[in-house]
Amino acid sequence: MFPEQSLAWGQSNNVIRKLAAYAAARKAQIGAENVFDFTIGSPSVPAPRTVTDALVDIITNTSPVRLHDYTPAAGLPSLRKRIAEDLNSRFAAGISPEMVFVTCGAAAGLVGCCHGLLNKGDEAIVFAPFFSEYTVFVEGAGAKLVVCAPQDNMQPDMDVFENSISEKTRLVIINSPNNPSGVILTADSLSTIAYILRRAEKKYGHPIYLVSDEPYRELLFDGSSPLCISHFYENSIICYSFSKSLSLPGERIGYLAISEKMAEKELVFASISGALRGCGYVNAPSLMQMVVERCMGQTSDISVYKKNRDLLYDALTEAGFDCIKPDGAFYLFMKSPEPDAVKFSERAKKYELILVPSDDFGIEGYVRLAYCVAESTIRNSIPAFRKLAEEYGI
Amino acid sequence: MFPEQSLAWGQSNNVIRKLAAYAAARKAQIGAENVFDFTIGSPSVPAPRTVTDALVDIITNTSPVRLHDYTPAAGLPSLRKRIAEDLNSRFAAGISPEMVFVTCGAAAGLVGCCHGLLNKGDEAIVFAPFFSEYTVFVEGAGAKLVVCAPQDNMQPDMDVFENSISEKTRLVIINSPNNPSGVILTADSLSTIAYILRRAEKKYGHPIYLVSDEPYRELLFDGSSPLCISHFYENSIICYSFSKSLSLPGERIGYLAISEKMAEKELVFASISGALRGCGYVNAPSLMQMVVERCMGQTSDISVYKKNRDLLYDALTEAGFDCIKPDGAFYLFMKSPEPDAVKFSERAKKYELILVPSDDFGIEGYVRLAYCVAESTIRNSIPAFRKLAEEYGI
Repeated sequence: MFPEQSLAWGQSNNVIRKLAAYAAARKAQIGAENVFDFTIGSPSVPAPRTVTDALVDIITNTSPVRLHDYTPAAGLPSLRKRIAEDLNSRFAAGISPEMVFVTCGAAAGLVGCCHGLLNKGDEAIVFAPFFSEYTVFVEGAGAKLVVCAPQDNMQPDMDVFENSISEKTRLVIINSPNNPSGVILTADSLSTIAYILRRAEKKYGHPIYLVSDEPYRELLFDGSSPLCISHFYENSIICYSFSKSLSLPGERIGYLAISEKMAEKELVFASISGALRGCGYVNAPSLMQMVVERCMGQTSDISVYKKNRDLLYDALTEAGFDCIKPDGAFYLFMKSPEPDAVKFSERAKKYELILVPSDDFGIEGYVRLAYCVAESTIRNSIPAFRKLAEEYGI
Repeated sequence: MFPEQSLAWGQSNNVIRKLAAYAAARKAQIGAENVFDFTIGSPSVPAPRTVTDALVDIITNTSPVRLHDYTPAAGLPSLRKRIAEDLNSRFAAGISPEMVFVTCGAAAGLVGCCHGLLNKGDEAIVFAPFFSEYTVFVEGAGAKLVVCAPQDNMQPDMDVFENSISEKTRLVIINSPNNPSGVILTADSLSTIAYILRRAEKKYGHPIYLVSDEPYRELLFDGSSPLCISHFYENSIICYSFSKSLSLPGERIGYLAISEKMAEKELVFASISGALRGCGYVNAPSLMQMVVERCMGQTSDISVYKKNRDLLYDALTEAGFDCIKPDGAFYLFMKSPEPDAVKFSERAKKYELILVPSDDFGIEGYVRLAYCVAESTIRNSIPAFRKLAEEYGI
């Protein structure tokens, strides 16, 4: 009676939110300091001072009528220009302002790509492990999600990838640094993906769009620099959010940027615009558009995440757990000592460790730890992890 | 190759935006004071001082981590409670906080209703004249838009309405005060609509949802008070936006509220939530959620619109034009002196009068004047309207 997908999406208990609710209840029972909540990927460091200053300055010195007015659907022209400049100056991305569309976060950008580029029956490829909402966005467009199993180190398996491409493939989503694994794609991996896609485009005679979901772009450790997808592949689209770099997840502000080298870029832009219009997006929040224009290129104190990573990774490996070492973002992927990660996550609760099983990320046998938490939470959790390891005889 | 709907929506030149662009270009040529631009329905009065004060206070006194954090998908619990209290105290609406979903404006609320309640092949009824995006939202859900022609006074024709209902009807959208006509639905009209719908529900054995799109709820003249749809009909949903009452159109903040008397309200809520998730909505902008919670029940100085209405309506009728007298909102619907309103709109440009032809609102032969403009614009436009009337021999 109700549209099947909508009802299912509305009724499905998102595992992360369910565990977070459990953690919150448990904190209320035994005190927040006694619960080690690694569930939610929400920045633990505040937005930089410049964001607050920009907010107050803009609010105080802009006519409210202009400040809160509709903007063009694709965003304020000055912001689109500033975004292109930022991408071009930092990455020589070759993006023109006309190919930038300011979105309500990366989620809206991804929905625009899925609904704007996928026909019913088309296929979209993702690399496991992957952010679970990709399923919703792809299937919402009436397309099929094709999942590529990774190598043991959570890097894409290029043979699996090549074999997963069919004549129905229209879209590939990559996500580096990755949620949930923290793994980054190397220049070599991106080149190979591009090579395989170009060959497939030729074989099947139609473009295959590579969508790079990169809200964690700036959250990189060990001296890596972000790589720009438009250097590797013509038919590429960047989906970005200021959620993580500026610690603004609730404000819903990001953008998508279409490669200048894409042959059909005007049509792609039009179709994505139309898809977003169909989803009821009028414009990204106007005040926040002005704020991110002012704060372009800045970040929160993201060095905190590197410190947390080191602390947690060292403690867990020392305790005997098998972990993927994260190169970025604020997630750590840890192998479950028993095959069923859901059972492992349940058992970890005994020590007040709240870990998200990997099943919803398209792979079994792991848990995700969001370490965007206070350093003390990590420090205090170490004895609990040791006891958990002992219980498994690690 | 591209999804047909998305591409068409992205490529279609929205008539209003096209005319607004023309007006802007013309203003640059001959000076803003010489162009009488009645195209865009964007508030001309600023947000009240309390909005600015609340913004600055919240930004200054809230931890940025909390301020900009994700909220639950349906909104901050305190805001949902405040919205229900406001609706219940002002209208005895009988809304529970659990049935309130905070949305990115009324557009997102409408999309949630269309995608969450309409199956492919279902029919949704609208009353002409209607806000043109209804077409996009209904057809985006794979459903068919059924348009009811109005009476000459732009009130719904109940016979037409009754005959437009079929076994496929699942949704009816009403909009009072109306964009583009400014007409309001009387208690009598709402009762009749409810009576007809209840009979149809019985006949066809399934619920028909009545969605009340009411961003102009508070913009009422001549002493009318807003009517609350949940008093009239059980299966009703309010879609509201703070865009017009608080002059915040660019911030994308509103809500939907499901009647407590709806038998399947939990399923409806779930399906709408799932539909919004599918469209990539994560939460309504977090800062603005806090602001509207503080400013609930307040409005901009909307008395300006009544003054503008009186001035414009009197001038136009005096010049001999045939106008529908608006009871609310900030639009005036004027009969085109020639059958083709597009031609009339073109001819009006000669006198620098920029008027939107009614064709996109589901009815021919009228123009819409958005009089949310400076009073001086209306005053200075009067001689131009007189000349236009003369040209038509009125």
